[in-house]
Amino acid sequence: MTIPHIPPLKDDSLAAQLERAINNKTKPLGSLGALEGLAHKVGMIQQATRPELREPAILVFAGDHGVVAEGISAFPQDVTWQMVENFLAGGAAINVFARQNGCLLKVVDAGVKHDFGQREGLVNRKIAHGTANFAQQPAMSAQQCMEAIQCGMDLVAELPGNVLGFGEMGIGNTTAAAALMHRLTGIPVADCVGAGTGLTSEGVAHKQRVIEAAMALHAGAQDGLQALATFGGLEIAMMTGAMLKAAERRMVLLIDGFIVTSALLAAARLQPAVLDYCVFSHCSDESGHQRMLNFLGARPLLNLGLRLGEGTGVALAVPLLQAAVNFLNQMATFESAQVSEKSE
Amino acid sequence: MTIPHIPPLKDDSLAAQLERAINNKTKPLGSLGALEGLAHKVGMIQQATRPELREPAILVFAGDHGVVAEGISAFPQDVTWQMVENFLAGGAAINVFARQNGCLLKVVDAGVKHDFGQREGLVNRKIAHGTANFAQQPAMSAQQCMEAIQCGMDLVAELPGNVLGFGEMGIGNTTAAAALMHRLTGIPVADCVGAGTGLTSEGVAHKQRVIEAAMALHAGAQDGLQALATFGGLEIAMMTGAMLKAAERRMVLLIDGFIVTSALLAAARLQPAVLDYCVFSHCSDESGHQRMLNFLGARPLLNLGLRLGEGTGVALAVPLLQAAVNFLNQMATFESAQVSEKSE
Repeated sequence: MTIPHIPPLKDDSLAAQLERAINNKTKPLGSLGALEGLAHKVGMIQQATRPELREPAILVFAGDHGVVAEGISAFPQDVTWQMVENFLAGGAAINVFARQNGCLLKVVDAGVKHDFGQREGLVNRKIAHGTANFAQQPAMSAQQCMEAIQCGMDLVAELPGNVLGFGEMGIGNTTAAAALMHRLTGIPVADCVGAGTGLTSEGVAHKQRVIEAAMALHAGAQDGLQALATFGGLEIAMMTGAMLKAAERRMVLLIDGFIVTSALLAAARLQPAVLDYCVFSHCSDESGHQRMLNFLGARPLLNLGLRLGEGTGVALAVPLLQAAVNFLNQMATFESAQVSEKSE
Repeated sequence: MTIPHIPPLKDDSLAAQLERAINNKTKPLGSLGALEGLAHKVGMIQQATRPELREPAILVFAGDHGVVAEGISAFPQDVTWQMVENFLAGGAAINVFARQNGCLLKVVDAGVKHDFGQREGLVNRKIAHGTANFAQQPAMSAQQCMEAIQCGMDLVAELPGNVLGFGEMGIGNTTAAAALMHRLTGIPVADCVGAGTGLTSEGVAHKQRVIEAAMALHAGAQDGLQALATFGGLEIAMMTGAMLKAAERRMVLLIDGFIVTSALLAAARLQPAVLDYCVFSHCSDESGHQRMLNFLGARPLLNLGLRLGEGTGVALAVPLLQAAVNFLNQMATFESAQVSEKSE
């Protein structure tokens, strides 16, 4: 496996051109707020003063987690495959929002503990029937983790568009993401752990103890790949690979909530410049997410108190991304519209 | 002129039905955050468990302000009519965003200081060529103010859809809105005044002094209609009327930024229950807006640092409104999708 090399976005001349184009639009300077930075970023990613969004896609990666044996989730493990079925039937929140906002939606079985057989609409990249319980042993072997990363890269190599959103499903995966977050950021475990799908405060305290014990058990798993294999999920590792490939292809990466951002922490450990290609769609209500975003210096577009996962934040942010590109391409300039400029 | 009576939204049985419908969707309880409250509100407004959005429209009300003679704006007054031309030509931000998100856009001349003649796409409801300078006399006569309110009501009576967004254009209107805000909320003038389209700190201080002097001059203009006539703009008064009629028709009112919210302050003074019908699209970067929203107990959907006006925040929020209605109508339930519920 070869990790793609991701170059930082650096082109002073293009950056100045984009800034000028944005500032000449018929509006007070800076008055489109975050959309201005967003238009600038998409221009830099696409190396164009008139960027365009083509065929935005959302990949939802599903996987199961051995750590559920520790009783860290409010929902039973079967919900992972049941929700995959719900995705395939079109009845989940991500189906509704992706459909509304014109996103191609693909569901990837990265490692669900269930046999789906050949199913229309399901991309089968199952590495294993779930991970092992990281409270007892590494969640994946190094080999499995690399396979998952490679699968993620291969999937993205085939995509037709230039915008890729990431979503996930996996009962137990806020526990994996919190463990990964702690190991990759050094933020105290207590500040990484949250209620997930709806734990009580006692449940959250138990989840924290499980993660703290696992940290002691796996004290040696310090580098990005080791941490990913030890605490991650198959869906998380596959997202990490997909993110690296998407940045290499100069796609716009749309980052969802807590679990997706944990995959990005791993990707950024391997190739820090991957962050230049990311748009942070929202801040999740899962308590650690704001801290992850702070760690990355990221400002999300939406702050709606979502904590559903699946890529729902991504799908909801797509119209804002489109608006940023549209104002850059479609708005008149002061000159073209013959509007007077600000008095000096 | 008869101010419509707006009944509060109160129906315990429907509220319980909506809550049940929202909670039975295949997602952790409450995990769609602000979209859940939004779906609930639209259901209550439409008195339906399966609400639907029909032909969303945005009305952009334009008017000029005599108070610009005091030197309170960073842009010359001609920009009002020039931007109206820009709207008619389709080159402004609101054109781009309304087009993208499928909103009917209508531009209303409520009182621009310019003769447009008969123009395709411009709704002519001109009450006067701008207001008088409220630093010297009331901006409008009581008669003009009532005419503007009536025009706003009449315009809304003709609209085909059930969602109405409000936008505005008027050089000087952050000064009118700040004065109105102070008089209607009691919040200190210093906390109502902001940089508008880009004043320096000296300019903001001057704007504050102009408003404070006007407050002394018009100490008697205390009730809602008096305050509106004394400090408001023709576009602001027309929006106030439009809001009242829209609520009476049980439309969803989409509220934009600082100026639109000042019109709502006046509407709410006349009919407090109008607030039940409002969705607050965004929090503007104009510094007084957050305080207005706090005063109203309102939580906006977006917080993107916008301060452009025109209804841009409204247009950008429409997909979120649509998403709220869509999840309520289209998502599967735990039962229909055969997904296991939370363990007790």
